[in-house]
Amino acid sequence: MIFQTRLKGAKATLNVNGQHFQSIWFDESDDSVCIIDQTRLPHRFEIVTLNTLSDACHAIEAMQVRGAPLIGVTAVYGVYLALLEDPNQLAVALDRLAATRPTAVNLRWALDRMNAALRNTLAEKRVEVALQQARAMEAEDSAICADIGTQGVKLLQEIWDAKLDKSKPLNVLTHCNAGALAAVDWGTALSVIYKTAEVGVPLHVWVDETRPRNQGASLTCWELGQQEIAHTLIVDNAGGHLMQQGLVDCCVVGSDRTTITGDVCNKIGTYLKALAAFDNDVPFFVALPVSSIDFTLIDGIKEIPIEERDAEEVSHLNGIDEKGQFSKIRLCPEGVAVSNFGFDVTPARLITKIITEKGVFDAQQSQLQRLRN
Amino acid sequence: MIFQTRLKGAKATLNVNGQHFQSIWFDESDDSVCIIDQTRLPHRFEIVTLNTLSDACHAIEAMQVRGAPLIGVTAVYGVYLALLEDPNQLAVALDRLAATRPTAVNLRWALDRMNAALRNTLAEKRVEVALQQARAMEAEDSAICADIGTQGVKLLQEIWDAKLDKSKPLNVLTHCNAGALAAVDWGTALSVIYKTAEVGVPLHVWVDETRPRNQGASLTCWELGQQEIAHTLIVDNAGGHLMQQGLVDCCVVGSDRTTITGDVCNKIGTYLKALAAFDNDVPFFVALPVSSIDFTLIDGIKEIPIEERDAEEVSHLNGIDEKGQFSKIRLCPEGVAVSNFGFDVTPARLITKIITEKGVFDAQQSQLQRLRN
Repeated sequence: MIFQTRLKGAKATLNVNGQHFQSIWFDESDDSVCIIDQTRLPHRFEIVTLNTLSDACHAIEAMQVRGAPLIGVTAVYGVYLALLEDPNQLAVALDRLAATRPTAVNLRWALDRMNAALRNTLAEKRVEVALQQARAMEAEDSAICADIGTQGVKLLQEIWDAKLDKSKPLNVLTHCNAGALAAVDWGTALSVIYKTAEVGVPLHVWVDETRPRNQGASLTCWELGQQEIAHTLIVDNAGGHLMQQGLVDCCVVGSDRTTITGDVCNKIGTYLKALAAFDNDVPFFVALPVSSIDFTLIDGIKEIPIEERDAEEVSHLNGIDEKGQFSKIRLCPEGVAVSNFGFDVTPARLITKIITEKGVFDAQQSQLQRLRN
Repeated sequence: MIFQTRLKGAKATLNVNGQHFQSIWFDESDDSVCIIDQTRLPHRFEIVTLNTLSDACHAIEAMQVRGAPLIGVTAVYGVYLALLEDPNQLAVALDRLAATRPTAVNLRWALDRMNAALRNTLAEKRVEVALQQARAMEAEDSAICADIGTQGVKLLQEIWDAKLDKSKPLNVLTHCNAGALAAVDWGTALSVIYKTAEVGVPLHVWVDETRPRNQGASLTCWELGQQEIAHTLIVDNAGGHLMQQGLVDCCVVGSDRTTITGDVCNKIGTYLKALAAFDNDVPFFVALPVSSIDFTLIDGIKEIPIEERDAEEVSHLNGIDEKGQFSKIRLCPEGVAVSNFGFDVTPARLITKIITEKGVFDAQQSQLQRLRN
């Protein structure tokens, strides 16, 4: 298995049964791209090989890969795979990949970068340049996510230092999966947690299951388990009660798109947790790469398009049955009307700090505009 | 089937395929108590017969019946069944039934009433008196719930009258199931909806699925479907986004226990919806029988014990698989730690009005104490 060789000794967060992994990597042996199939976790750990543009589009659409940073890197590898098939289908590839998910802004950012690097490159050079670019962006994403974690440590360390009852760990609540599985490596919100654990702060994570797709229950629990960070699974309804009872020291979440004013678009339900955090004086941190800031937007609630996904994500659930087989069950009466918005917007006023690879900022335009190129 | 005769012509809300039903009724033909098994809904409509104290305790514990009013009535029938087995086991029966669920206050209220009626009754008269009392409380619960609905109509009618865009129905969000299935009949929150529909207001209900047990997805959707009230199923995470986008005109929920100061303990997650309603100027109504007000409590967050339930309710889910069979699936890694609080407390400051059978009140002690006997 090539990936074992390739990642041997790599400084990756994602330990799977003690072996280092990234969520995506290039396999030099056959010019293919490998991903961990996240629709099979936590029940099966399976590697999928992407060979074509269609494979890459499918991986994003079917959410074999998800999470803003990882979607971006998968898309740029998708451009490479497309050019490998046909060096003249750059425009087609960019269009098809851009249409896979409407909300995450760094999908478009990543594709714009590929376009800039490739549009004036001769056809016979495109494949090579595309691969260089994709591998560079893969490495860059990993470094950025590691830096996000490092930047966040001081915030959590401060809360830990101020915590009176040191017999209990620092309780951090997170929503969805903004971990190594949402990026090439490290993640955003979970990178902060990993880096804080590295400096010796005792941590416990409350994991929102994150309906409808349960990325918390399936991915975050699995990832934290592999990294041996203490965690407890809760339903999305529980966070308010836990905060009221003083059982949450801070919240850390990721973001799919952030306005220049600091409004954060993230997995549906994030806004409800931010309201509860605000109501209970619990710091609410959002960890994100600068590439996910959309400097063109002022009002997140009015301006960010919210993806609506398939009704079946709500009406049905996938899991492992008592025989250990994958099974899909229906929860509600047959044919019931369903609404399934994938994201919501948390207004800047509810956010304590925004953690980026370039530092920690207030959720305010006066601060965030400094990050604009 | 006796229950068809018994309920023929009864003015019951709960239509099941056009037939009138209550959630619980007495079957004169064999001195038994019948319930709809709510753990089988919406997939199967099954009647369960309770013959013993153990049957009644099991029905409450296993949540074949649930909802504060219905738990109370089931418990008083449980006392009757216990005395039918042995007229001298009144104290035992009261203790066992009181221990079935710790949060709902009208379980205790109902048992106290039974105790008051029975403790000075001669053993040979107890069975008869217990049955009279249980049947009276059953009828009373139905009448109270109908009155709660009637009292709430004016609130929803007012919002409808003020709504500018009458091309859309009045959008009401509800959490969990506070319907006919949570009571003998009518329900509390859904009674307001049924009675408002009766006066001709066009209604559409957003139904929170209500993890972990999905009473919204399974029971409320089923009940509203049978009653032909338009509704859409959403995940618990979605309500904040819908309110931000102006898609919710008001929220109506039930309560398991309410303090004299107006703090409302209801299904976990209610507090998060109340926060979102407050943040978006959406009226938040709580519909409840006076029997669920605990006049001894001042601070709901500090004083109300919150039931913790089995981890498997979070880690596993029941539904119907693709072959139409009941199936239980696991969502998360095996052996993950789980926390499962059943309720939370919504502070009075977030509640617009409390709707009772005796009128509509502000969530304030000065108003609610008038309801004290």
